[in-house]
Amino acid sequence: MKFNTSIGFSDSENILIYGKDLCNDLIGNVNLGDMAFIAATHRLPTENESRMLNAIMVALCEHGFTPSSISTRLTYLGAPESTQAAVAAGLLGAGNVYLGSMESTARVLQESVGFYGNLDNDEMVNKILSNYKDKRFPGFGHPIHKQVDPRSKKLFEMAENLGFKKGYSKLITDIHKSLCEIKQKEIVLNASGAVGAILSDMGFKWNIVKCFALAARSVGLIGHILEEQGKDRISQDLWDYVQENTKYNM
Amino acid sequence: MKFNTSIGFSDSENILIYGKDLCNDLIGNVNLGDMAFIAATHRLPTENESRMLNAIMVALCEHGFTPSSISTRLTYLGAPESTQAAVAAGLLGAGNVYLGSMESTARVLQESVGFYGNLDNDEMVNKILSNYKDKRFPGFGHPIHKQVDPRSKKLFEMAENLGFKKGYSKLITDIHKSLCEIKQKEIVLNASGAVGAILSDMGFKWNIVKCFALAARSVGLIGHILEEQGKDRISQDLWDYVQENTKYNM
Amino acid sequence: MKFNTSIGFSDSENILIYGKDLCNDLIGNVNLGDMAFIAATHRLPTENESRMLNAIMVALCEHGFTPSSISTRLTYLGAPESTQAAVAAGLLGAGNVYLGSMESTARVLQESVGFYGNLDNDEMVNKILSNYKDKRFPGFGHPIHKQVDPRSKKLFEMAENLGFKKGYSKLITDIHKSLCEIKQKEIVLNASGAVGAILSDMGFKWNIVKCFALAARSVGLIGHILEEQGKDRISQDLWDYVQENTKYNM
Amino acid sequence: MKFNTSIGFSDSENILIYGKDLCNDLIGNVNLGDMAFIAATHRLPTENESRMLNAIMVALCEHGFTPSSISTRLTYLGAPESTQAAVAAGLLGAGNVYLGSMESTARVLQESVGFYGNLDNDEMVNKILSNYKDKRFPGFGHPIHKQVDPRSKKLFEMAENLGFKKGYSKLITDIHKSLCEIKQKEIVLNASGAVGAILSDMGFKWNIVKCFALAARSVGLIGHILEEQGKDRISQDLWDYVQENTKYNM
Repeated sequence: MKFNTSIGFSDSENILIYGKDLCNDLIGNVNLGDMAFIAATHRLPTENESRMLNAIMVALCEHGFTPSSISTRLTYLGAPESTQAAVAAGLLGAGNVYLGSMESTARVLQESVGFYGNLDNDEMVNKILSNYKDKRFPGFGHPIHKQVDPRSKKLFEMAENLGFKKGYSKLITDIHKSLCEIKQKEIVLNASGAVGAILSDMGFKWNIVKCFALAARSVGLIGHILEEQGKDRISQDLWDYVQENTKYNM
Repeated sequence: MKFNTSIGFSDSENILIYGKDLCNDLIGNVNLGDMAFIAATHRLPTENESRMLNAIMVALCEHGFTPSSISTRLTYLGAPESTQAAVAAGLLGAGNVYLGSMESTARVLQESVGFYGNLDNDEMVNKILSNYKDKRFPGFGHPIHKQVDPRSKKLFEMAENLGFKKGYSKLITDIHKSLCEIKQKEIVLNASGAVGAILSDMGFKWNIVKCFALAARSVGLIGHILEEQGKDRISQDLWDYVQENTKYNM
Repeated sequence: MKFNTSIGFSDSENILIYGKDLCNDLIGNVNLGDMAFIAATHRLPTENESRMLNAIMVALCEHGFTPSSISTRLTYLGAPESTQAAVAAGLLGAGNVYLGSMESTARVLQESVGFYGNLDNDEMVNKILSNYKDKRFPGFGHPIHKQVDPRSKKLFEMAENLGFKKGYSKLITDIHKSLCEIKQKEIVLNASGAVGAILSDMGFKWNIVKCFALAARSVGLIGHILEEQGKDRISQDLWDYVQENTKYNM
Repeated sequence: MKFNTSIGFSDSENILIYGKDLCNDLIGNVNLGDMAFIAATHRLPTENESRMLNAIMVALCEHGFTPSSISTRLTYLGAPESTQAAVAAGLLGAGNVYLGSMESTARVLQESVGFYGNLDNDEMVNKILSNYKDKRFPGFGHPIHKQVDPRSKKLFEMAENLGFKKGYSKLITDIHKSLCEIKQKEIVLNASGAVGAILSDMGFKWNIVKCFALAARSVGLIGHILEEQGKDRISQDLWDYVQENTKYNM
C-alpha cells in the first residue's frame, strides 16, 4: 500500500513542501498567511492574493472574550503544562453557532450559484431567500455592530481594490439589499458574511473556508494564553464568581 | 467584579486590538505572522522582527505525515462536519515528545542564563551539560537530517542578517560544539533547537514559545484536511491497513 | 446574576449531586453506568434501567483499532504527559460518520413518531423510508458483521426481558424488514441502530444519546493508552510504516 | 508489519474483548466501571474490586461548576452539533493543577516505595516529605472541605471493608499525620489523595490512574450538556456577564 500525498517530502538535505523548496523558496520569502494560501491551493499567492488572504485572516484572529477564548483560559488554568490543550479547547467551539456562519455563507452562495446559475440575479436572490423564510440567513446580524460591521466594510474595500469583489460578493450584496427591504430595517452584513463571500470569490471551496478562521484563531489565542500567564489572569476570578453565584435547584 | 484585559475592545463602530484600530491599523497593513507577534508583545513588529517571526512560523507549518497530521486526518474521517475537531486533534499531540522540544530548549537556555549568568561561557556550557548526563538535551538530533537540519541553517542565517543572533543563539551553538565533542560525532542542531534559541533572542519568554508552533501547525493542517477532502484521502486506507494487519494476542 | 443548576452543591461537610448525598446515597450504592443514568434523568435508575443502560454502555466501550483509538495512540506518542489530550483526541472523531449514527437513528425515530404519529405503522415506515431514497438510513450496515450484529441481537434480547422493547424498537424492526425487502437482501441492523432505538424506548431524547457513547468510549480508551505504555505500542510502528510507504506526488 | 494488540478482535459472528466474548461474557454481566477495570488489567474484577473501582469512579464523576465543566458548556454553546467537542473540551483541563494531583499522589507513593522501600515507615515519611519542603505535597488541601473531605472518609472506609486499605493507604495516612504535625494544623487529605492511594493499593500503576478520572468525568459531563440543552443554560449568561464586566486596559 502507498499513501499518496502532494504535501511534502524530505530527505537528508532537502525539504519540499507543495513542490517548493522550504528553505530556499518559502522561509524568508513568504509570510504565515501565504502558507495558508499555499496549503489550500498548492501554489504561491499573487501579490494581491497574499494581501487579501492575510487581511481576512488578520480580521479573524481576535474577538476578545468569547466562549472560545474563555475555554482556552479555563483549560490553561487546569493544565498550564499543555498549551496545546488550551489552544485546542479554544478551537472546539468553532461550530455551527459561531465560526460556522462563515462556512455556511460560503456554502449557500456556492451551492446557489450551482443550482440557480442560469437564473438572472433578482430571480436567484428570490429563490435563495425563499429557502430561508423560517431560518436565519448566515452572515448577517451582529450584537454590537448594529449599523455596519467595520470589518466587512474594510474587507470589501480591499476586495474591490485588489480585484476580488466578483460574483459571490455581488450576490451577497444583493441578498443584503433584499433582506433589508423584506425586514424593513437595516440588517448588518457581518464579517463572517463578508469573508464567506470574498473567499468564495478567491476560488476557495466552501468546505475549507472555516480552516482559515481556525488558523487565524490559533494565532489570536496566543494573546489569551499570555494574559493568563500574567496579572490579567481572569480564569480563576471567573470560576470564583461562578461558584459564589450559583443557585442550586434541588 | 471586573475582568481586566489588554487584548481588545469594541463598540458599535470601532474595534481595538492591543490598542490598535483593527480596521485602520492592522487589516491590510500587517500579515498573519505579525498578528502572532502583536499578540505576544502588544506592539507592532519592526520590519526585521516581522521577517524573522514569519520565517520561523513558515518553517514550522508543515512536517508531512506526522502523528499529529495523521490524527487530524483520522478525526476528519469520522467527523467531516467538524473541521475544528480535526484541527484540535492535530494539535493535541504537540506535547513533551514532539513540539515540546522547542519549549524545552527555550526554557533551558533562559533558565541557565538566569542561574549561571555570572559564569563565563565555557563554564556555563559545562554546568548546563552536566545536568543532562542521563537525559537528552532538547533541540538536538533528527531522524532524517542527520548531518545538518536545513531549517536551522537557514533560520540562523536570517537571524544573523536581521540582528537576532544574540546570546541565546551563541549559547546553543557552544552547547552544540561541546555535545559533538563529548559524543565524538556530529550531532544535528535541529529546527526546534534553532527556533527555541532565536525566539529567546527575540525576547520571548520560554512558556509562550510553543504557541507560535501551534499556530503555525494550524495553518499547515489546512493542507491535510484539504487532501482528505479529495482523492488523496489516506485515512481510510490507513485504517484498512491496520485492520488487515492486526495480530490479536489473546 | 445567578447561575442556576440542578446538578450539585457542596458545603464543608456535604456533597449533594442531583439531590442525592454523594457519600451516603451514591458511592458504594450505584455503579458508573448508573451515574450516567442519574446525570441524564436526575433520578436513580430502577434495577432494570441500571442493567439495560450498563449493558448498552458496555457494548459501546471498545471497538479495537478504529480511527478514534488510533488518534488516541498517536496523540499519546507525542504527549504522554497529557493523557487527557489523548482521550480527547480519541473522542473528537465521534462525528456524523461514526458514533453519530446512533444519534441520527434516535433522531429519525423520535422525530418520525412526532411527525407521523397518527399514521398506522406501515404507512409510517413508508413515509420514513421515502425520505431516505437517496441517502443511507442510519443504523444499518456493518463491514464485518454482514449477517447479524451480535450486539444488536443481545441488546434487543435484554431489552425484551427488561421491558424496554417498546415503540421505537418495534419501529426500527419494521424499518429493518422493509429495507431488506426493498433492497432484496439481508441488511444488518447494527449496534448503533439498536442502541438508538432502545435508548429512545428508555425515554432519552435523541440529542443526549451520543453522550452515553462518548462516556463509554472514554472507558475503553483506558485500554489503548495502557497498551501504548507497554510493549504493544503500535503508534510508532504505524508512523514508521506511513513514512516508509509515502508516495510523494509533486 | 503486524500491529499487535491484546484488546480485541472480531469476525462476522464474534467479538472478543480482552479474551472475553463481548456478547456472552460482558454485556449484561458486568457494569461500566468493570469495563474500566478490564481495560486496565485484562481480567474480570472480583466482586470487591468491582465495588471499589465503581465507588471511586462514582466519586469522581461530578464536581459541579468547575473550569472543566464550564469549558464543556461554552464549547457546546458554539458547537451544539458536536457533543464530542464539548466533552473533549471538558477533559482538556484535567492537567497538572486539577485532576493531575491524583496521578501525582499515586506517582510519589509508588516511586517512594520503590526508592525507600528498605527504610522503616517513619524514616520513609521523613525522606518523602523532605523532598516537598518548597512545594505542595499532592493530595492534600481543599477549598471547601477544610476539616475533612467526606469522599476520602467514605472511600477509605470502603477500602478497609473490601480489603484494599494496604501499604499505600497506610503510607499516605502517615504522611497526613506528619504534615499536620509539621504545619501544626489540620490539613485535609482530599479525594485525589485518597483515590491515588487506594488505586495504588489495588495494583494500578500511577500513569494509568488519571484515565479512570477522565472516564468518570466523561460520565458526569452528560449532566452539564443536558442542562445546556434546557432552561438552565448558563453559558450564554456567563458570556454576557463577562462582556458586560470587562475592563479594557489600553
